[in-house]
Amino acid sequence: MKPESIKALTFDVFGTVVDWRSSIAREGEAFGRARGLTVDWVRFAEAWRGLYQPAMDEVRSGRRPWTKLDDLHRESLVTLLAEFKITGLKESEIDDLNRAWHRLDPWPDAVPGLVRLKSRYILATLSNGNVALMVNMAKRAGLPWDTILGAEVAGAYKPQPKAYLRSAELLGLQLSECLMVAAHPNDLKAAAGCGLRTAYVPRPLEHGPGKAAASAPAKGDFDVVARDFVDLADQLGS
Amino acid sequence: MKPESIKALTFDVFGTVVDWRSSIAREGEAFGRARGLTVDWVRFAEAWRGLYQPAMDEVRSGRRPWTKLDDLHRESLVTLLAEFKITGLKESEIDDLNRAWHRLDPWPDAVPGLVRLKSRYILATLSNGNVALMVNMAKRAGLPWDTILGAEVAGAYKPQPKAYLRSAELLGLQLSECLMVAAHPNDLKAAAGCGLRTAYVPRPLEHGPGKAAASAPAKGDFDVVARDFVDLADQLGS
Repeated sequence: MKPESIKALTFDVFGTVVDWRSSIAREGEAFGRARGLTVDWVRFAEAWRGLYQPAMDEVRSGRRPWTKLDDLHRESLVTLLAEFKITGLKESEIDDLNRAWHRLDPWPDAVPGLVRLKSRYILATLSNGNVALMVNMAKRAGLPWDTILGAEVAGAYKPQPKAYLRSAELLGLQLSECLMVAAHPNDLKAAAGCGLRTAYVPRPLEHGPGKAAASAPAKGDFDVVARDFVDLADQLGS
Repeated sequence: MKPESIKALTFDVFGTVVDWRSSIAREGEAFGRARGLTVDWVRFAEAWRGLYQPAMDEVRSGRRPWTKLDDLHRESLVTLLAEFKITGLKESEIDDLNRAWHRLDPWPDAVPGLVRLKSRYILATLSNGNVALMVNMAKRAGLPWDTILGAEVAGAYKPQPKAYLRSAELLGLQLSECLMVAAHPNDLKAAAGCGLRTAYVPRPLEHGPGKAAASAPAKGDFDVVARDFVDLADQLGS
Protein backbone atom coordinates (compact mmCIF):
# COMPACT_ATOMS: atom_id res chain seq x y z
CA MET A 1 0.00 0.00 0.00
CA LYS A 2 1.37 3.42 -0.98
CA PRO A 3 0.64 6.12 1.61
CA GLU A 4 -0.24 8.52 -1.24
CA SER A 5 -3.18 6.28 -2.19
CA ILE A 6 -4.79 6.97 1.21
CA LYS A 7 -6.94 10.08 1.81
CA ALA A 8 -8.66 9.31 5.11
CA LEU A 9 -7.82 7.37 8.24
CA THR A 10 -10.86 5.94 10.03
CA PHE A 11 -10.35 4.94 13.65
CA ASP A 12 -11.70 2.42 16.01
CA VAL A 13 -11.72 4.29 19.33
CA PHE A 14 -12.39 2.10 22.44
CA GLY A 15 -9.14 0.29 23.09
CA THR A 16 -7.38 1.68 20.00
CA VAL A 17 -7.32 5.41 20.81
CA VAL A 18 -8.41 5.42 24.45
CA ASP A 19 -7.75 3.16 27.42
CA TRP A 20 -11.31 2.35 28.50
CA ARG A 21 -10.28 -0.09 31.26
CA SER A 22 -8.17 2.16 33.45
CA SER A 23 -10.33 5.22 32.66
CA ILE A 24 -13.59 3.57 33.71
CA ALA A 25 -11.86 2.20 36.82
CA ARG A 26 -10.59 5.72 37.64
CA GLU A 27 -14.06 7.21 37.13
CA GLY A 28 -15.58 4.47 39.29
CA GLU A 29 -13.04 5.05 42.07
CA ALA A 30 -13.90 8.76 42.20
CA PHE A 31 -17.61 8.03 42.06
CA GLY A 32 -17.36 5.42 44.82
CA ARG A 33 -15.08 7.47 47.06
CA ALA A 34 -17.58 10.36 47.05
CA ARG A 35 -20.30 7.93 48.19
CA GLY A 36 -18.35 5.66 50.55
CA LEU A 37 -18.74 2.62 48.27
CA THR A 38 -16.32 -0.31 48.40
CA VAL A 39 -16.19 -1.79 44.91
CA ASP A 40 -13.48 -3.46 42.80
CA TRP A 41 -13.74 -0.89 40.02
CA VAL A 42 -11.32 -2.64 37.68
CA ARG A 43 -13.53 -5.72 37.82
CA PHE A 44 -16.56 -3.44 37.38
CA ALA A 45 -14.99 -1.86 34.26
CA GLU A 46 -14.25 -5.26 32.79
CA ALA A 47 -17.77 -6.51 33.54
CA TRP A 48 -19.28 -3.39 31.95
CA ARG A 49 -17.21 -3.89 28.82
CA GLY A 50 -18.18 -7.56 28.91
CA LEU A 51 -21.82 -6.62 28.31
CA TYR A 52 -20.86 -4.46 25.29
CA GLN A 53 -20.92 -7.03 22.49
CA PRO A 54 -24.04 -8.88 23.76
CA ALA A 55 -25.92 -5.55 23.95
CA MET A 56 -24.98 -4.62 20.38
CA ASP A 57 -25.84 -8.12 19.21
CA GLU A 58 -29.47 -7.42 20.08
CA VAL A 59 -29.42 -4.55 17.58
CA ARG A 60 -27.25 -6.33 14.98
CA SER A 61 -29.64 -9.27 14.95
CA GLY A 62 -32.66 -7.04 14.41
CA ARG A 63 -34.20 -8.22 17.69
CA ARG A 64 -34.40 -4.60 18.76
CA PRO A 65 -34.47 -1.36 16.75
CA TRP A 66 -31.50 0.98 16.51
CA THR A 67 -30.36 1.97 20.00
CA LYS A 68 -27.37 4.22 20.54
CA LEU A 69 -24.42 3.09 22.62
CA ASP A 70 -25.09 5.56 25.46
CA ASP A 71 -28.42 3.82 25.99
CA LEU A 72 -26.94 0.32 25.75
CA HIS A 73 -24.23 1.32 28.23
CA ARG A 74 -26.85 2.61 30.66
CA GLU A 75 -28.89 -0.58 30.55
CA SER A 76 -25.73 -2.61 31.19
CA LEU A 77 -24.83 -0.28 34.04
CA VAL A 78 -28.18 -0.81 35.76
CA THR A 79 -27.65 -4.58 35.48
CA LEU A 80 -24.18 -4.31 36.99
CA LEU A 81 -25.18 -2.01 39.84
CA ALA A 82 -27.54 -4.75 41.02
CA GLU A 83 -24.91 -7.43 40.50
CA PHE A 84 -22.32 -5.46 42.49
CA LYS A 85 -24.98 -4.67 45.14
CA ILE A 86 -24.69 -0.91 44.69
CA THR A 87 -28.04 0.53 45.71
CA GLY A 88 -29.73 3.83 46.51
CA LEU A 89 -28.35 5.84 43.59
CA LYS A 90 -30.41 8.63 42.06
CA GLU A 91 -31.19 8.51 38.32
CA SER A 92 -28.96 11.55 37.82
CA GLU A 93 -26.08 9.76 39.57
CA ILE A 94 -26.49 6.76 37.28
CA ASP A 95 -26.53 9.12 34.28
CA ASP A 96 -23.31 10.72 35.49
CA LEU A 97 -21.56 7.39 35.99
CA ASN A 98 -22.78 6.27 32.55
CA ARG A 99 -21.11 9.30 31.03
CA ALA A 100 -17.75 7.98 32.29
CA TRP A 101 -17.49 6.61 28.74
CA HIS A 102 -17.38 10.24 27.52
CA ARG A 103 -14.34 10.83 29.74
CA LEU A 104 -11.89 8.14 28.65
CA ASP A 105 -8.18 8.97 28.50
CA PRO A 106 -6.13 8.46 25.33
CA TRP A 107 -3.08 6.23 25.20
CA PRO A 108 0.00 8.48 25.63
CA ASP A 109 0.97 8.34 21.93
CA ALA A 110 -2.55 8.97 20.59
CA VAL A 111 -2.77 12.76 20.56
CA PRO A 112 0.83 13.40 19.35
CA GLY A 113 0.35 10.80 16.59
CA LEU A 114 -3.05 12.13 15.52
CA VAL A 115 -1.81 15.71 15.37
CA ARG A 116 0.92 14.63 12.94
CA LEU A 117 -1.42 12.44 10.88
CA LYS A 118 -4.00 15.25 10.65
CA SER A 119 -1.60 17.43 8.65
CA ARG A 120 -1.80 15.00 5.75
CA TYR A 121 -4.96 12.90 6.12
CA ILE A 122 -8.63 13.28 6.97
CA LEU A 123 -9.12 11.78 10.44
CA ALA A 124 -12.54 10.35 11.25
CA THR A 125 -13.85 8.13 13.99
CA LEU A 126 -15.41 4.86 12.84
CA SER A 127 -16.48 3.66 16.24
CA ASN A 128 -19.54 1.98 17.70
CA GLY A 129 -19.76 4.93 20.10
CA ASN A 130 -22.51 7.43 19.36
CA VAL A 131 -21.79 10.93 18.08
CA ALA A 132 -22.28 12.75 21.41
CA LEU A 133 -20.01 10.28 23.20
CA MET A 134 -17.27 10.74 20.57
CA VAL A 135 -17.61 14.55 20.48
CA ASN A 136 -17.50 14.91 24.27
CA MET A 137 -14.57 12.51 24.57
CA ALA A 138 -12.64 14.39 21.88
CA LYS A 139 -13.26 17.81 23.49
CA ARG A 140 -11.97 16.58 26.86
CA ALA A 141 -9.03 14.55 25.56
CA GLY A 142 -7.95 16.84 22.71
CA LEU A 143 -8.49 14.26 19.95
CA PRO A 144 -8.27 16.29 16.72
CA TRP A 145 -10.90 14.53 14.57
CA ASP A 146 -12.02 16.15 11.35
CA THR A 147 -15.42 14.55 11.80
CA ILE A 148 -17.30 11.85 13.70
CA LEU A 149 -18.63 8.94 11.62
CA GLY A 150 -19.33 5.29 12.44
CA ALA A 151 -22.23 3.35 13.88
CA GLU A 152 -24.77 6.04 14.73
CA VAL A 153 -24.61 7.92 11.42
CA ALA A 154 -24.60 4.59 9.55
CA GLY A 155 -27.36 3.03 11.67
CA ALA A 156 -25.31 -0.19 12.02
CA TYR A 157 -22.82 -1.54 14.51
CA LYS A 158 -19.40 -2.82 13.40
CA PRO A 159 -18.48 -5.36 12.20
CA GLN A 160 -21.59 -5.05 10.01
CA PRO A 161 -20.48 -3.84 6.56
CA LYS A 162 -22.89 -0.89 6.51
CA ALA A 163 -20.89 0.84 9.28
CA TYR A 164 -17.74 0.92 7.10
CA LEU A 165 -19.46 1.45 3.76
CA ARG A 166 -21.61 4.36 4.86
CA SER A 167 -18.68 6.09 6.58
CA ALA A 168 -16.58 5.94 3.40
CA GLU A 169 -19.55 7.09 1.34
CA LEU A 170 -20.07 10.13 3.59
CA LEU A 171 -16.40 11.03 3.06
CA GLY A 172 -16.98 10.85 -0.70
CA LEU A 173 -14.04 8.46 -1.04
CA GLN A 174 -13.29 5.17 -2.71
CA LEU A 175 -13.11 2.39 -0.11
CA SER A 176 -9.44 1.81 -1.00
CA GLU A 177 -8.70 5.47 -0.13
CA CYS A 178 -9.71 4.79 3.50
CA LEU A 179 -7.34 3.20 6.02
CA MET A 180 -9.07 1.60 9.00
CA VAL A 181 -6.93 1.83 12.15
CA ALA A 182 -7.70 -0.58 14.99
CA ALA A 183 -6.23 -2.70 17.74
CA HIS A 184 -8.72 -5.48 16.99
CA PRO A 185 -8.11 -7.93 14.13
CA ASN A 186 -11.84 -8.75 13.72
CA ASP A 187 -12.63 -5.07 13.12
CA LEU A 188 -9.85 -4.85 10.50
CA LYS A 189 -10.92 -8.08 8.86
CA ALA A 190 -14.47 -6.73 8.44
CA ALA A 191 -13.11 -3.42 7.06
CA ALA A 192 -10.86 -5.25 4.61
CA GLY A 193 -13.84 -7.34 3.53
CA CYS A 194 -15.56 -4.07 2.53
CA GLY A 195 -12.49 -2.89 0.58
CA LEU A 196 -10.85 -0.54 3.08
CA ARG A 197 -7.12 -0.68 3.76
CA THR A 198 -6.07 -1.71 7.26
CA ALA A 199 -3.57 -0.63 9.90
CA TYR A 200 -3.12 -2.81 12.98
CA VAL A 201 -1.93 -1.03 16.11
CA PRO A 202 -1.78 -3.60 18.93
CA ARG A 203 -2.64 -2.29 22.38
CA PRO A 204 -1.21 -4.99 24.66
CA LEU A 205 -2.47 -3.21 27.80
CA GLU A 206 -6.11 -2.91 26.70
CA HIS A 207 -7.22 -5.75 28.99
CA GLY A 208 -4.61 -5.05 31.66
CA PRO A 209 -0.99 -6.08 32.23
CA GLY A 210 -0.22 -9.65 31.19
CA LYS A 211 -3.48 -10.04 29.25
CA ALA A 212 -2.16 -9.51 25.71
CA ALA A 213 -3.59 -11.73 23.00
CA ALA A 214 -1.92 -15.16 23.19
CA SER A 215 -1.09 -15.27 19.49
CA ALA A 216 -0.35 -12.07 17.59
CA PRO A 217 -1.85 -11.94 14.07
CA ALA A 218 0.52 -12.44 11.18
CA LYS A 219 1.95 -9.23 9.71
CA GLY A 220 0.72 -10.05 6.22
CA ASP A 221 -2.90 -9.85 7.37
CA PHE A 222 -2.80 -6.02 7.32
CA ASP A 223 -1.54 -3.27 5.02
CA VAL A 224 0.29 -1.61 7.91
CA VAL A 225 1.35 -2.79 11.37
CA ALA A 226 2.46 -0.03 13.74
CA ARG A 227 3.70 -0.02 17.33
CA ASP A 228 1.65 3.07 18.18
CA PHE A 229 0.25 6.22 16.53
CA VAL A 230 3.63 7.96 16.38
CA ASP A 231 5.06 4.97 14.55
CA LEU A 232 1.97 5.03 12.30
CA ALA A 233 2.69 8.69 11.45
CA ASP A 234 6.30 7.77 10.68
CA GLN A 235 5.24 4.95 8.38
CA LEU A 236 2.61 7.07 6.62
CA GLY A 237 5.04 9.93 6.05
CA SER A 238 3.28 12.60 8.06
CA MET B 1 -30.00 34.00 26.81
CA LYS B 2 -27.16 33.18 29.19
CA PRO B 3 -23.98 31.96 27.43
CA GLU B 4 -23.61 29.25 30.10
CA SER B 5 -26.89 27.68 28.94
CA ILE B 6 -25.33 26.97 25.52
CA LYS B 7 -23.23 23.84 24.90
CA ALA B 8 -22.94 23.72 21.12
CA LEU B 9 -22.83 26.24 18.31
CA THR B 10 -24.24 24.96 15.02
CA PHE B 11 -23.24 26.87 11.92
CA ASP B 12 -24.69 27.67 8.59
CA VAL B 13 -21.65 27.65 6.30
CA PHE B 14 -22.26 29.04 2.77
CA GLY B 15 -22.32 32.82 3.18
CA THR B 16 -22.01 32.71 6.98
CA VAL B 17 -18.55 31.12 7.37
CA VAL B 18 -17.25 31.25 3.80
CA ASP B 19 -17.54 33.73 0.96
CA TRP B 20 -18.93 31.52 -1.82
CA ARG B 21 -19.33 34.34 -4.35
CA SER B 22 -15.75 35.57 -4.60
CA SER B 23 -14.33 32.06 -4.06
CA ILE B 24 -16.33 30.49 -6.89
CA ALA B 25 -15.44 33.46 -9.12
CA ARG B 26 -11.75 32.98 -8.25
CA GLU B 27 -11.93 29.25 -8.97
CA GLY B 28 -13.72 29.96 -12.25
CA GLU B 29 -11.12 32.54 -13.30
CA ALA B 30 -8.28 30.04 -12.76
CA PHE B 31 -10.23 27.29 -14.54
CA GLY B 32 -11.04 29.57 -17.49
CA ARG B 33 -7.56 31.05 -17.76
CA ALA B 34 -6.03 27.57 -18.10
CA ARG B 35 -8.44 26.86 -20.97
CA GLY B 36 -8.58 30.24 -22.69
CA LEU B 37 -12.25 30.78 -21.80
CA THR B 38 -13.77 34.25 -21.62
CA VAL B 39 -16.54 34.14 -19.03
CA ASP B 40 -17.94 36.61 -16.49
CA TRP B 41 -17.19 34.33 -13.53
CA VAL B 42 -18.85 36.55 -10.95
CA ARG B 43 -22.07 36.29 -12.93
CA PHE B 44 -21.43 32.55 -13.29
CA ALA B 45 -21.01 32.17 -9.51
CA GLU B 46 -24.24 34.06 -8.87
CA ALA B 47 -26.12 32.00 -11.46
CA TRP B 48 -24.80 28.76 -9.93
CA ARG B 49 -25.92 29.84 -6.48
CA GLY B 50 -29.23 30.90 -8.04
CA LEU B 51 -29.97 27.27 -8.91
CA TYR B 52 -29.24 26.12 -5.32
CA GLN B 53 -32.65 26.57 -3.70
CA PRO B 54 -34.66 25.28 -6.71
CA ALA B 55 -32.48 22.14 -6.82
CA MET B 56 -33.01 21.46 -3.09
CA ASP B 57 -36.73 22.15 -3.49
CA GLU B 58 -37.00 19.05 -5.68
CA VAL B 59 -35.74 16.99 -2.74
CA ARG B 60 -37.65 18.91 -0.04
CA SER B 61 -40.91 18.42 -1.93
CA GLY B 62 -40.35 14.67 -2.23
CA ARG B 63 -40.35 14.90 -6.04
CA ARG B 64 -36.93 13.25 -6.01
CA PRO B 65 -35.21 11.02 -3.44
CA TRP B 66 -32.39 12.24 -1.24
CA THR B 67 -29.60 13.66 -3.39
CA LYS B 68 -26.48 15.16 -1.85
CA LEU B 69 -25.46 18.72 -2.59
CA ASP B 70 -22.36 17.74 -4.61
CA ASP B 71 -24.69 16.01 -7.06
CA LEU B 72 -27.18 18.89 -7.17
CA HIS B 73 -24.29 21.31 -7.74
CA ARG B 74 -23.02 19.21 -10.63
CA GLU B 75 -26.40 19.09 -12.35
CA SER B 76 -26.69 22.87 -12.01
CA LEU B 77 -23.17 23.24 -13.36
CA VAL B 78 -23.98 21.23 -16.48
CA THR B 79 -27.03 23.46 -17.06
CA LEU B 80 -24.93 26.61 -16.67
CA LEU B 81 -22.08 25.43 -18.88
CA ALA B 82 -24.61 25.17 -21.72
CA GLU B 83 -26.15 28.53 -20.85
CA PHE B 84 -22.73 30.24 -20.80
CA LYS B 85 -21.81 28.40 -24.03
CA ILE B 86 -18.81 26.64 -22.45
CA THR B 87 -18.30 23.46 -24.45
CA GLY B 88 -15.82 20.65 -24.96
CA LEU B 89 -15.00 19.97 -21.31
CA LYS B 90 -14.11 16.46 -20.19
CA GLU B 91 -16.18 14.84 -17.41
CA SER B 92 -13.14 15.04 -15.12
CA GLU B 93 -12.83 18.79 -15.79
CA ILE B 94 -16.49 19.30 -14.89
CA ASP B 95 -15.92 17.25 -11.71
CA ASP B 96 -12.96 19.43 -10.83
CA LEU B 97 -14.87 22.68 -11.38
CA ASN B 98 -17.77 21.27 -9.34
CA ARG B 99 -15.40 20.72 -6.45
CA ALA B 100 -14.76 24.48 -6.36
CA TRP B 101 -17.43 24.39 -3.62
CA HIS B 102 -14.95 22.34 -1.53
CA ARG B 103 -12.42 25.17 -1.85
CA LEU B 104 -14.29 28.21 -0.56
CA ASP B 105 -12.41 30.80 1.48
CA PRO B 106 -13.58 31.84 4.95
CA TRP B 107 -14.43 35.45 5.82
CA PRO B 108 -11.34 36.96 7.49
CA ASP B 109 -12.80 36.81 11.02
CA ALA B 110 -14.10 33.23 10.72
CA VAL B 111 -11.06 31.15 11.70
CA PRO B 112 -9.87 33.44 14.54
CA GLY B 113 -13.41 33.59 15.93
CA LEU B 114 -13.98 29.85 15.66
CA VAL B 115 -10.66 29.03 17.35
CA ARG B 116 -11.74 31.14 20.34
CA LEU B 117 -15.27 29.72 20.40
CA LYS B 118 -13.94 26.15 20.22
CA SER B 119 -12.24 26.48 23.60
CA ARG B 120 -15.64 26.73 25.28
CA TYR B 121 -18.26 25.25 22.95
CA ILE B 122 -18.82 22.28 20.67
CA LEU B 123 -18.65 23.60 17.10
CA ALA B 124 -20.61 21.71 14.45
CA THR B 125 -21.65 22.52 10.92
CA LEU B 126 -25.38 22.53 10.28
CA SER B 127 -25.20 23.19 6.56
CA ASN B 128 -26.96 21.90 3.48
CA GLY B 129 -23.52 20.94 2.17
CA ASN B 130 -22.73 17.22 2.25
CA VAL B 131 -20.19 15.73 4.63
CA ALA B 132 -17.34 15.36 2.10
CA LEU B 133 -17.78 18.94 0.94
CA MET B 134 -17.66 20.23 4.53
CA VAL B 135 -14.69 18.06 5.52
CA ASN B 136 -12.63 19.02 2.47
CA MET B 137 -13.47 22.71 2.88
CA ALA B 138 -12.48 22.60 6.55
CA LYS B 139 -9.16 20.85 5.87
CA ARG B 140 -8.19 23.45 3.26
CA ALA B 141 -9.46 26.53 5.14
CA GLY B 142 -8.50 25.49 8.67
CA LEU B 143 -12.05 25.54 10.04
CA PRO B 144 -11.80 23.81 13.44
CA TRP B 145 -15.11 21.94 13.56
CA ASP B 146 -15.63 19.30 16.24
CA THR B 147 -17.90 17.43 13.86
CA ILE B 148 -19.89 17.74 10.65
CA LEU B 149 -23.67 17.51 10.97
CA GLY B 150 -26.56 18.98 8.95
CA ALA B 151 -28.50 17.97 5.87
CA GLU B 152 -26.75 14.78 4.75
CA VAL B 153 -26.66 13.05 8.13
CA ALA B 154 -30.25 14.18 8.79
CA GLY B 155 -31.51 13.27 5.33
CA ALA B 156 -33.29 16.65 5.06
CA TYR B 157 -32.42 20.08 3.70
CA LYS B 158 -32.80 23.19 5.83
CA PRO B 159 -35.13 24.87 6.56
CA GLN B 160 -36.93 21.57 7.08
CA PRO B 161 -37.14 20.91 10.84
CA LYS B 162 -35.54 17.46 10.61
CA ALA B 163 -32.18 19.02 9.67
CA TYR B 164 -32.04 20.95 12.95
CA LEU B 165 -33.72 18.35 15.16
CA ARG B 166 -31.54 15.44 14.05
CA SER B 167 -28.34 17.48 14.42
CA ALA B 168 -29.19 18.40 18.02
CA GLU B 169 -30.20 14.80 18.73
CA LEU B 170 -26.85 13.49 17.45
CA LEU B 171 -25.10 15.93 19.81
CA GLY B 172 -27.17 14.49 22.67
CA LEU B 173 -28.28 17.99 23.64
CA GLN B 174 -31.48 19.77 24.46
CA LEU B 175 -32.53 22.03 21.58
CA SER B 176 -32.17 25.08 23.84
CA GLU B 177 -28.50 24.13 24.46
CA CYS B 178 -27.75 24.65 20.75
CA LEU B 179 -27.10 28.08 19.25
CA MET B 180 -27.65 28.28 15.49
CA VAL B 181 -25.31 30.81 13.87
CA ALA B 182 -26.26 32.15 10.45
CA ALA B 183 -26.25 35.18 8.19
CA HIS B 184 -29.72 34.31 6.92
CA PRO B 185 -32.84 35.22 8.93
CA ASN B 186 -34.94 32.44 7.35
CA ASP B 187 -32.48 29.80 8.53
CA LEU B 188 -32.54 31.25 12.04
CA LYS B 189 -36.32 31.53 12.05
CA ALA B 190 -36.60 27.81 11.19
CA ALA B 191 -34.04 26.91 13.88
CA ALA B 192 -35.91 28.98 16.47
CA GLY B 193 -39.13 27.25 15.44
CA CYS B 194 -37.48 23.96 16.43
CA GLY B 195 -36.36 25.34 19.79
CA LEU B 196 -32.72 26.24 19.08
CA ARG B 197 -31.26 29.55 20.17
CA THR B 198 -30.16 31.91 17.41
CA ALA B 199 -27.21 34.16 16.61
CA TYR B 200 -27.45 36.47 13.61
CA VAL B 201 -24.15 37.45 12.01
CA PRO B 202 -24.92 39.63 8.98
CA ARG B 203 -22.57 39.24 6.02
CA PRO B 204 -23.26 42.38 3.99
CA LEU B 205 -20.80 41.35 1.26
CA GLU B 206 -22.30 37.89 0.62
CA HIS B 207 -23.96 39.02 -2.60
CA GLY B 208 -21.29 41.57 -3.48
CA PRO B 209 -20.63 45.22 -2.59
CA GLY B 210 -23.81 47.31 -2.34
CA LYS B 211 -26.11 44.28 -2.29
CA ALA B 212 -26.82 44.10 1.43
CA ALA B 213 -30.38 43.28 2.49
CA ALA B 214 -32.52 46.40 2.09
CA SER B 215 -34.02 46.12 5.57
CA ALA B 216 -32.02 44.63 8.40
CA PRO B 217 -34.04 42.35 10.71
CA ALA B 218 -34.95 43.76 14.10
CA LYS B 219 -32.50 42.94 16.88
CA GLY B 220 -35.18 41.33 19.04
CA ASP B 221 -35.70 38.59 16.46
CA PHE B 222 -32.55 36.75 17.62
CA ASP B 223 -30.92 35.78 20.91
CA VAL B 224 -27.60 37.26 19.77
CA VAL B 225 -26.64 39.69 17.00
CA ALA B 226 -22.91 39.90 16.28
CA ARG B 227 -20.84 41.92 13.80
CA ASP B 228 -18.61 38.94 13.02
CA PHE B 229 -17.25 35.77 14.66
CA VAL B 230 -14.73 37.63 16.81
CA ASP B 231 -17.54 39.78 18.17
CA LEU B 232 -19.57 36.58 18.68
CA ALA B 233 -16.70 35.11 20.74
CA ASP B 234 -16.58 38.33 22.79
CA GLN B 235 -20.32 38.22 23.46
CA LEU B 236 -20.27 34.51 24.35
CA GLY B 237 -17.36 34.94 26.74
CA SER B 238 -14.83 32.73 24.97
